[in-house]
Amino acid sequence: MLIIGENINASNQAVAAAIAGRDREFVERLARAQAEAGADFIDVNAGAGKGALEEQTASIEWLIDVIQATTDKPLAIDSDSPAIIVAALRKYRGERMIINSVTAEPERLASVGPLAAERQAWLVALAMGTEGIPDNVEQRLAACDVVMEYLSGLGMTADQVFFDPLVLPIAVDSSQGLVTLRTIEQIKSRYPGARTVVGLSNISYGLPNRKLVNRAFLLMAAYAGLDAAILDPLDAKAMSLAKVGDMLTGKDTFCKGYIRAYRQGVIVD
Amino acid sequence: MLIIGENINASNQAVAAAIAGRDREFVERLARAQAEAGADFIDVNAGAGKGALEEQTASIEWLIDVIQATTDKPLAIDSDSPAIIVAALRKYRGERMIINSVTAEPERLASVGPLAAERQAWLVALAMGTEGIPDNVEQRLAACDVVMEYLSGLGMTADQVFFDPLVLPIAVDSSQGLVTLRTIEQIKSRYPGARTVVGLSNISYGLPNRKLVNRAFLLMAAYAGLDAAILDPLDAKAMSLAKVGDMLTGKDTFCKGYIRAYRQGVIVD
Repeated sequence: MLIIGENINASNQAVAAAIAGRDREFVERLARAQAEAGADFIDVNAGAGKGALEEQTASIEWLIDVIQATTDKPLAIDSDSPAIIVAALRKYRGERMIINSVTAEPERLASVGPLAAERQAWLVALAMGTEGIPDNVEQRLAACDVVMEYLSGLGMTADQVFFDPLVLPIAVDSSQGLVTLRTIEQIKSRYPGARTVVGLSNISYGLPNRKLVNRAFLLMAAYAGLDAAILDPLDAKAMSLAKVGDMLTGKDTFCKGYIRAYRQGVIVD
Repeated sequence: MLIIGENINASNQAVAAAIAGRDREFVERLARAQAEAGADFIDVNAGAGKGALEEQTASIEWLIDVIQATTDKPLAIDSDSPAIIVAALRKYRGERMIINSVTAEPERLASVGPLAAERQAWLVALAMGTEGIPDNVEQRLAACDVVMEYLSGLGMTADQVFFDPLVLPIAVDSSQGLVTLRTIEQIKSRYPGARTVVGLSNISYGLPNRKLVNRAFLLMAAYAGLDAAILDPLDAKAMSLAKVGDMLTGKDTFCKGYIRAYRQGVIVD
């Protein structure tokens, strides 16, 4: 399981304050901790921001500078604003990157798709169109088809795409866990070369003991065919279960990765 | 998820000693603890035993007497010896019961099948024949077909059968987790009325932190379609995850069961 560390995200108030106050040390600490905990990518989300585009651009540029001075881990540039993504990419010197995200919305595809193609980035594609998140598997797949067709036209191949089946809270609709899991299965069967990714935490919205629910969902998703998860890599239990998930789905031959992690003392129960 | 408490099993040395010494209090404590922890059935396995059949029969009769004097929970009579099952059933007064198990072996089917049919018991059918546990999905399904055909001839219906896809250690063969999980899926699709059950613990044989691995496998199996698990109900983490698994697979409408369990303080992280 590819781990995308979610902690540098301005939807968290402390992170937003650190960005606004240009608290370099705070951001460095978050970046370093996630890298040390085993994140494969560091997600960078400077928030939608209330200020002018100029201010938001200055924020993401500062963030990218600070993080890449701290760690060599590749970054996932996370924004629904094409202009912010452009600004981040201008600063980012790494070769590997994830751009998060496009949807099946024509404007977003047209503005972000070519950026991903040009930089040979991995691109997260949300399984939704202009009407918001569909409540069923079929419409989510239809959105994936629209995205894949558009990106193919830009010369991109399935192995550059991370489809995000999207997660809705199980507390709102009991069927939504299965909708997401079945969408993962269907994406893997329709686009065998493509990868899948989810942001886990929405599943547990409104419930007690959210991290437990998120971890359980991670394992089910791993079996359904999930390749990558956006999560808190400082949650040692989630990181342990991600390794166990790799082992149980046959991705960890001779259980080498699990046993190595156990010897390093990072497997927690 | 239907929970079958595994703790009264003579393969555990302390239990074997308690049975040999007719330590009534020890057995009562195990039965009560499992019932209080939320087991739906109490498994009773008096062991293969080294003594004469007469001695083994006396042991299982004593066990059944002690347990049903302690708890009203229904029992799962667990033995590969038809004679022991006969002896246990003679003592057991409950209406609901599980008989564990038959295989596709003709002799075992012929001796245990009619007992299950007569008592209207739920019957665990192991997905194996005379050649031991097959290493692939197809042969396990073929064994299920043999069992179902035989039981149909006795007038039994799929909803009386709990197919056990069987679990082999992931440490011996990295593909075996997926073999079991895919077998569960295939059984559910081939026999929609039948249920599935596994004894979890074999998956982690030879690995460190076995309970963590068992729990992770339980969640994947829940998504694959598992209906029942033979496990240690005193493992509060496993019991919590079983509830989360029900919720995430849409079996717990409005998350009522999970929230009730949380309020009772039995959800642990």
